[in-house]
Amino acid sequence: MTAAMDVINVIIPFKPSNPKSRLSSILSRDERLLLAESMLRDVYEAVREVIDAENIAVISPEPFQKEWFQGRVLVDERSLDECVNSTIINRCSNDAVAIIMSDLPLLSGKILQEFFSADGDVVAAPGRKGGTNMLLVRDSKFRVSYHFGSFFRHMRTAESMGLRFTIFDSFLASVDIDEPSDVLELMLHGSGKHSYQFLASLGFYVDFSSKDPTLRRR
Amino acid sequence: MTAAMDVINVIIPFKPSNPKSRLSSILSRDERLLLAESMLRDVYEAVREVIDAENIAVISPEPFQKEWFQGRVLVDERSLDECVNSTIINRCSNDAVAIIMSDLPLLSGKILQEFFSADGDVVAAPGRKGGTNMLLVRDSKFRVSYHFGSFFRHMRTAESMGLRFTIFDSFLASVDIDEPSDVLELMLHGSGKHSYQFLASLGFYVDFSSKDPTLRRR
Repeated sequence: MTAAMDVINVIIPFKPSNPKSRLSSILSRDERLLLAESMLRDVYEAVREVIDAENIAVISPEPFQKEWFQGRVLVDERSLDECVNSTIINRCSNDAVAIIMSDLPLLSGKILQEFFSADGDVVAAPGRKGGTNMLLVRDSKFRVSYHFGSFFRHMRTAESMGLRFTIFDSFLASVDIDEPSDVLELMLHGSGKHSYQFLASLGFYVDFSSKDPTLRRR
Repeated sequence: MTAAMDVINVIIPFKPSNPKSRLSSILSRDERLLLAESMLRDVYEAVREVIDAENIAVISPEPFQKEWFQGRVLVDERSLDECVNSTIINRCSNDAVAIIMSDLPLLSGKILQEFFSADGDVVAAPGRKGGTNMLLVRDSKFRVSYHFGSFFRHMRTAESMGLRFTIFDSFLASVDIDEPSDVLELMLHGSGKHSYQFLASLGFYVDFSSKDPTLRRR
């Protein structure tokens, strides 16, 4: 017997006000906003390869409109945890909820297809420093908590509820762009992405002449 | 028709002299050597879950002997590139050669099983900063070159030879332990590993009380 494919509702949280402040040593405020938007576009387009636009929502504290975006916009000023948990509680039966961070420009349709197909009541893709870069929730009991090493918090929460927790092991999904060393990873692996092209247009490139590849700006 | 499973010869390069110098801000020289050995043991034991000991070799410029190690030791003072390339050239027909770095303590038998099963003439698992953390070579034409962003060098070499190059996308295989921020990842994800237990015995732990998890020593 083949079960009907469950609908997956994808949420992409996005905060346009002073984004990516840990990049202020290498990017102006305007550049950081444009980078954040181009990364969101990369994430959206990767998700769109496997999910219909009507099942993709950007959650933002402010209105959001772009010509390339055909998904839904949920303007919500509550905390990320409150927004996401209310979506999990209110999901339709059998629907799954996936929370994909907006700063994962190295995602692809192939990675997301594997992620959405992974077994488990809760599937989580770790970022560095204990972050939860992608989360797939198939049980309405589960609640998210996105601070202080959220990956392990999500693992413990699932286990305490008797839910099956699966680690989705992907380097490309682990690279969230927070610090200059992350921008290096984007310039190394992101050829063809909108965010890569934006950074290249600002003059960023990788210098391969020293022992380790180094991020530079012309 | 089912092809006979090719033999995979695994090489683990190991340099015991003043290892992991970028950790000297948090570890003494003796501690760094013990950490390097415990990581090698983690890697060896993960490989042993899927590969016979006789097909595992440590390459080292100095003799190497440990009671937990049943593989072969190749004492070779040449550069890593020369050692590995001569192994690739001299492999038996159909044998594959895998080069697994010795500082990847988060590897598991499951990850290695998937890595060894991946399609491609050359399969590479990226580390951060353009490194090649694991490499599987199924064609004797291929040559390695481990400096200056080796991952992209290996990709270009394969493509220039008309070989199929496959990216093996794993976060846990991407974490090579070079810097203190990498030790944080080991203490976050490495519970049960020899290297984790060694660092815990030195007093290292993760402080979850601040915004980001932080590595501390008692």
